[in-house]
Amino acid sequence: MALTEVALGIDIGGTNTKIGFVDRNGVSLADSSVPTGEDDVDSFLNRLYKAVDRTMLPIRDRVKLVGVGIGAPNGNYYKGTVEYPPNLPWRDVSPVVQWVEGHYKVPTKLTNDANAAALGEMKFGVAKGMKNFLVVTLGTGLGSGFVVNGKLAYGHDGFAGELGHVTVNPQGRMCGCGRKGCLETYVSATGIRRTVYKLLADHAEDSEMRRISFDDLDASNITEAALRGDKIAIEAFEYTGRILGMKLADIMALLSPEAIILFGGLTKAKEILFEPVYRHMENQMMPIFKGKVKLMASGLVGTNTAVLGAAALIWHELEMQF
Amino acid sequence: MALTEVALGIDIGGTNTKIGFVDRNGVSLADSSVPTGEDDVDSFLNRLYKAVDRTMLPIRDRVKLVGVGIGAPNGNYYKGTVEYPPNLPWRDVSPVVQWVEGHYKVPTKLTNDANAAALGEMKFGVAKGMKNFLVVTLGTGLGSGFVVNGKLAYGHDGFAGELGHVTVNPQGRMCGCGRKGCLETYVSATGIRRTVYKLLADHAEDSEMRRISFDDLDASNITEAALRGDKIAIEAFEYTGRILGMKLADIMALLSPEAIILFGGLTKAKEILFEPVYRHMENQMMPIFKGKVKLMASGLVGTNTAVLGAAALIWHELEMQF
Repeated sequence: MALTEVALGIDIGGTNTKIGFVDRNGVSLADSSVPTGEDDVDSFLNRLYKAVDRTMLPIRDRVKLVGVGIGAPNGNYYKGTVEYPPNLPWRDVSPVVQWVEGHYKVPTKLTNDANAAALGEMKFGVAKGMKNFLVVTLGTGLGSGFVVNGKLAYGHDGFAGELGHVTVNPQGRMCGCGRKGCLETYVSATGIRRTVYKLLADHAEDSEMRRISFDDLDASNITEAALRGDKIAIEAFEYTGRILGMKLADIMALLSPEAIILFGGLTKAKEILFEPVYRHMENQMMPIFKGKVKLMASGLVGTNTAVLGAAALIWHELEMQF
Repeated sequence: MALTEVALGIDIGGTNTKIGFVDRNGVSLADSSVPTGEDDVDSFLNRLYKAVDRTMLPIRDRVKLVGVGIGAPNGNYYKGTVEYPPNLPWRDVSPVVQWVEGHYKVPTKLTNDANAAALGEMKFGVAKGMKNFLVVTLGTGLGSGFVVNGKLAYGHDGFAGELGHVTVNPQGRMCGCGRKGCLETYVSATGIRRTVYKLLADHAEDSEMRRISFDDLDASNITEAALRGDKIAIEAFEYTGRILGMKLADIMALLSPEAIILFGGLTKAKEILFEPVYRHMENQMMPIFKGKVKLMASGLVGTNTAVLGAAALIWHELEMQF
């Protein structure tokens, strides 16, 4: 029997790292996860290699590993490094590609998770055939991956795609990057939590969220409250949609993409999020761009979404060589 | 004697249209200009063709025309059309490439003037060898051309690059595009004039500009006043630099270019403009990007700058085919 060629996709998150063996069509043949952990990068890699071996065991006789793709916070595509990751207890700069490529002896590539998601959408998701689009990941923070003329925009230094750190208000909310008023302090799972608290402070109206502590509040219970008609929760999505819509209208002016794909935890709110984002985006848009862009939900469904994106990175590289 | 291959570069402006025959190295062998005129596009083209013939006359025995590149306001690269040009008395949509290509029987391409300037910088100017940069044109309005991974970003519809229409303040100055608070209402030759008038209204300080009417005020006399130490004029450049710097810091987060090249009338102020732009840009920038980008003046000097850009467009196309 001919062996099926597979790429190993690795998505390194702040808490867990997900792995999967993904074929050329985006089908994951085996996947699992391993704690990213509170220890150093060397201990993490040992754990990772063992988990990969265990995961591969049931399929090892019928697959051939052709490459490894890695999505990681602050991943630098050009250097193959993870640099100053804000939520990982690693050294300042870790040459992850060098180490992993040395271990598996197959081509290995790394980029940040939002760029991996963009490649995943292009190869396996809703952006098939598109040449100009962006993916916006709405998780703890806000990430983005831009595809321009059919290629990911890595920028000169490999760190392009930081839509989360365009400025909404230079005197605005404190951001983890050290500045104030960055987009992700408003538009993200943590951003909408801050918005709810601001609205609870500014308004006298009752809300079920007045019974939830800041630490217990998250995108899920804000979404649920909005679905139950809680006015503060609905207003929080309206506020989030206004700010994101305004910035997406700016992106439209700059790059005129065919589609903007929203991805990540906050998108579980579906129309409660999408409707105000689209309305404000179109409202703020320069006339020549109105009605042209599609606002879409991710086409990468299931538990291994980020792994598909990471695998897409190396499939994309391998196919570009021919 | 072997014929020298030349491209015809045409820059269609609101008042004048400049033409030039440019060789592969960016040397213009003959150039001239013709009024764009107040009449329709057909009359304009007749005038243009005659001017081109006259200009070519002295060199016609030693050159071979291989292509035509056109820079035009609201030029659509994909369709070869000029659409709804705000400052031209033409029909809504003019298929300029179809007409010009039919006349000269050589490959013809068209894009907006800022995109043409970006290609000009890449082929003949300060961006030689760069893969990720942008050109910002500071004239009556603010235009931009983005190069990503070595290629111009035209976007899905051919209209990408409208940096002049990102929003500074949704309740801000009226813009010609029908919205409020667009970047070009602050940062352009007309924008700085509005800023001077706002400062003259807000402050009691004397200024030589209190003796100039709004209609007589322009980038030149504001620059001259600043050079003479006029505090209102200096403050106007500071304000302009703060707003442009803030938006360029955003661009850095999105696309992480190697260089940002400023071009056009307002750049004649040199350091009076560049210093505050750079200072505010670096100040507003996300830490990982600080100190990485070059802020440069255009490398396309002389009277035929825009023509060089237009010629670069077709040279670029012709060379990409091999």
